[in-house]
Amino acid sequence: MNSSPSLKSAAVEKQSHQSYFKIGLSVDCVILGYANKELQVLVIKSDLKEFAGQWSLLGDLVRPEEDLDNASYRVLEERTGLKNVYLEQVHAFGTRDRHPSGRVITIAYYSLIDIQNHKMQVNEHELTWKPVRTLKKMAFDHRKILDTCLLRLSEQVFDKPLLFNLLPVKFALRDLQELYESVLGETLDRRNFRKKIAVKHWLRDTGDMEKSVVHRPGRLYTVKAASK
Amino acid sequence: MNSSPSLKSAAVEKQSHQSYFKIGLSVDCVILGYANKELQVLVIKSDLKEFAGQWSLLGDLVRPEEDLDNASYRVLEERTGLKNVYLEQVHAFGTRDRHPSGRVITIAYYSLIDIQNHKMQVNEHELTWKPVRTLKKMAFDHRKILDTCLLRLSEQVFDKPLLFNLLPVKFALRDLQELYESVLGETLDRRNFRKKIAVKHWLRDTGDMEKSVVHRPGRLYTVKAASK
Repeated sequence: MNSSPSLKSAAVEKQSHQSYFKIGLSVDCVILGYANKELQVLVIKSDLKEFAGQWSLLGDLVRPEEDLDNASYRVLEERTGLKNVYLEQVHAFGTRDRHPSGRVITIAYYSLIDIQNHKMQVNEHELTWKPVRTLKKMAFDHRKILDTCLLRLSEQVFDKPLLFNLLPVKFALRDLQELYESVLGETLDRRNFRKKIAVKHWLRDTGDMEKSVVHRPGRLYTVKAASK
Repeated sequence: MNSSPSLKSAAVEKQSHQSYFKIGLSVDCVILGYANKELQVLVIKSDLKEFAGQWSLLGDLVRPEEDLDNASYRVLEERTGLKNVYLEQVHAFGTRDRHPSGRVITIAYYSLIDIQNHKMQVNEHELTWKPVRTLKKMAFDHRKILDTCLLRLSEQVFDKPLLFNLLPVKFALRDLQELYESVLGETLDRRNFRKKIAVKHWLRDTGDMEKSVVHRPGRLYTVKAASK
């Protein structure tokens, strides 16, 4: 097939659009955990003067030679030491005034981890878990990014076995329901909830029972390997 | 609260990361329609020599002063004349070698439209509808982008009343089932499918029946306003 004379090469196209190639790209990781019956997010104090004292998500500029998805894993490992944590891309945020350094597009990723099972160096002033409910204001548009990830999560919780990543290996259905209620922000009917979960065939009865609980001990379940 | 002495301003940060601010940003629109019992996508011949003769999605670089979401609406209107079409952001594609002009991140959006109801200037050599099934190779990573959008669509079709956007205002359940089968790539049981749709309460019986069909005429349904 002959090229039409109107075709241009990529190099020529770029030359005519120099002012377009001045955008910065970052990734922001929304790392969610569950503790004290509340959804928690891993945050760090912003290192920019413009946002002094405010909490921000874990993020960084993507390096010139770095693939987008790799950048999110790098950020997570550099900041927390966490490896082999599944990150899911959620949304790109690109309003022109979202970053004081100029045009920076950020791609948000989220992950769900079992806080008890992932020991990391957190301290109150740098990297720390905060209940999502308590973070009224955050640096940049990070509260909006957090809300977008929470919405995505709530839309998926009955379609995919996601929330189990927040729980210990063995858990009672009572704990599971409390977690769902926390994520969905609503009270669920016990019987309907159990029916809805049962038809998914996500869980396996471990044969063990809860210990040291004030209520009647419940059976402990675990997620089937194929569901994770 | 006092700023810690280690805080830096956004301007200083940018100065130390000049090589990071050389990325191009584009949007690509996956416009899906339905005709001849097949899912179709709106494509255009690539205007880059590197992809001469290949089909590409409708896309463009985001302008330096343009918000991300606005860019997708601009592209769609410029290329097709279409306005007021709902676009949903799906995914950012950012491997470092995906574009011959250098580092270009693209954000994919998708939309579902009723082909019969949206008259636009299409012609075989420039802008045209192609069955998604027939597009084996596309310019850039556009086949991968298309596949990602199709996967997202198939995951959502029983959660949200999306596919009705591809159909005329009135349609028979037989047509609806064929559309679902086309999107999901599998044959569905007639009785189960109708039950699954019925419990959603998305549809309203128009009282009209199909005309000029070879099979027994079916009732015509329409989507309830609140579901759109």
